Amino acid sequence: MKLIRFGNQGQEKPGIAIEDKWLDCSSFGEDWTEDFLENDGLNRLQGWLEKNKDILEEVDPSTRLGSPINRPSKIICVGLNYTMHAKESGMAVPETPILFMKATSSICGPNDPIIIPRNSEKTDWEVELAVIIGKKATYVSQEEAMDYVAGYCLHNDVSERDFQLHHGGQWVKGKSADHFAPLGPYLVTKDEIPDPHSLRLWLSVNGEMLQDSVTSDLVFDIPTLISYISQYMTLLPGDVISTGTPSGVGLGLKPPRYLKEGDVVELGIDGLGKARQQAIHAK
Amino acid sequence: MKLIRFGNQGQEKPGIAIEDKWLDCSSFGEDWTEDFLENDGLNRLQGWLEKNKDILEEVDPSTRLGSPINRPSKIICVGLNYTMHAKESGMAVPETPILFMKATSSICGPNDPIIIPRNSEKTDWEVELAVIIGKKATYVSQEEAMDYVAGYCLHNDVSERDFQLHHGGQWVKGKSADHFAPLGPYLVTKDEIPDPHSLRLWLSVNGEMLQDSVTSDLVFDIPTLISYISQYMTLLPGDVISTGTPSGVGLGLKPPRYLKEGDVVELGIDGLGKARQQAIHAK
Repeated sequence: MKLIRFGNQGQEKPGIAIEDKWLDCSSFGEDWTEDFLENDGLNRLQGWLEKNKDILEEVDPSTRLGSPINRPSKIICVGLNYTMHAKESGMAVPETPILFMKATSSICGPNDPIIIPRNSEKTDWEVELAVIIGKKATYVSQEEAMDYVAGYCLHNDVSERDFQLHHGGQWVKGKSADHFAPLGPYLVTKDEIPDPHSLRLWLSVNGEMLQDSVTSDLVFDIPTLISYISQYMTLLPGDVISTGTPSGVGLGLKPPRYLKEGDVVELGIDGLGKARQQAIHAK
Repeated sequence: MKLIRFGNQGQEKPGIAIEDKWLDCSSFGEDWTEDFLENDGLNRLQGWLEKNKDILEEVDPSTRLGSPINRPSKIICVGLNYTMHAKESGMAVPETPILFMKATSSICGPNDPIIIPRNSEKTDWEVELAVIIGKKATYVSQEEAMDYVAGYCLHNDVSERDFQLHHGGQWVKGKSADHFAPLGPYLVTKDEIPDPHSLRLWLSVNGEMLQDSVTSDLVFDIPTLISYISQYMTLLPGDVISTGTPSGVGLGLKPPRYLKEGDVVELGIDGLGKARQQAIHAK
């Protein structure tokens, strides 16, 4: 299944994408949340769709999409998880996963504008494969880790490099501004992605392809990440693990290049859809 | 007002502490959440209490307390925000606030056990004054910052020093285990704490006083922190800003000293109550 959420920000309704159509699932009576996933929602939804999909109302394709998961408890990001990106950042390939958090208040829809924060000169892009957790995970082994995955999602881990690296302390400062986490268009359930480690992921700015890689290049793969993170904290249903970005971010270009108002970022991952974000300045 | 939440973990009910009694506020019909604060809940609750407090059921004082705020969107912590603590940690007093996040899945009640994670040898304590945000804050000035405060809360920013400092990357690894954020007993509303910068805060382990300081020693005060953080991310109602710990943590003792099973941690802040936590090993 491909879950979507549509409508104005903060008032999104749940839906599903089937064969190029978006169907309104409001009558299912639940939003795509932690509770939904925790209470076997994906299986219940699938059963309900088998009976009801032909009578669901179609959603106008010009409708705004929101994040396909309603606010999760956390977004855990993995730093420097592609070898070439570590090199372009001037950092070593890590021996253990680098983790950082992004405030969930940064979540927005896949085609919402990227808001360049006040006083920002280095707002940058990072296409990433995001894993959505399906059930509570604490001290999970690598062997059983994939049982804890609900599905996958396209994510742009928007980053302000000065805030992240040169404002003192931890990276969270450069990762958490409003609209710094466009998620979606879809939460694609695990069954539709037989091998999440062989997906092309790409990102262009104003039509110029700048990131173009494959998830097979991940330094730490998905089972390793889930198991590793679950040793340090409990992952809850709906939690987002953003698995890191390949090379081609603005920071790594020579000379470096950052977003300016009007720039159009497009990105996609095989099977997870595409997104388009235009940069604007914060008010 | 002193807001409490009581009952088993995950099933807490809202209540209020008045003159050494705990009163059940379930009949108010709302939990103490982001939505409650966002929709003028504190004023509405105060009005409701004036009419109803004499008919509210008393809560058995042996009942477990939970966190006085139901899961906020984020916990932002401030590092090295007391001069003597920066020194004992072998780090410089920061020129700008050091920020890091703690997973909200680490939140527990004020008297719940501290769970020493698997493979931990350096689980440490940090008494902190936590500020609870009352309304959405983006690009707030220092002058108006206090308007965004709902109240205050006692917090033990439990930390695993090896996970935090020696497992690669960012501090979040050592800050986010289950039960690493005991909050409460109370969310004390702002009106009850005329000067949050003159409160004694203390922490003892097995009866030995190890932290004993005053919030007047904060390097960056509360308006500075709120304004500063709101330049980097939006603070939402219910969000927790934990303002940093004074000297006397285990890491800073000579020799360093960490929690072992059975140790009893007691802590308190003037006007915000006391908490008691016993250390146990993770299963």
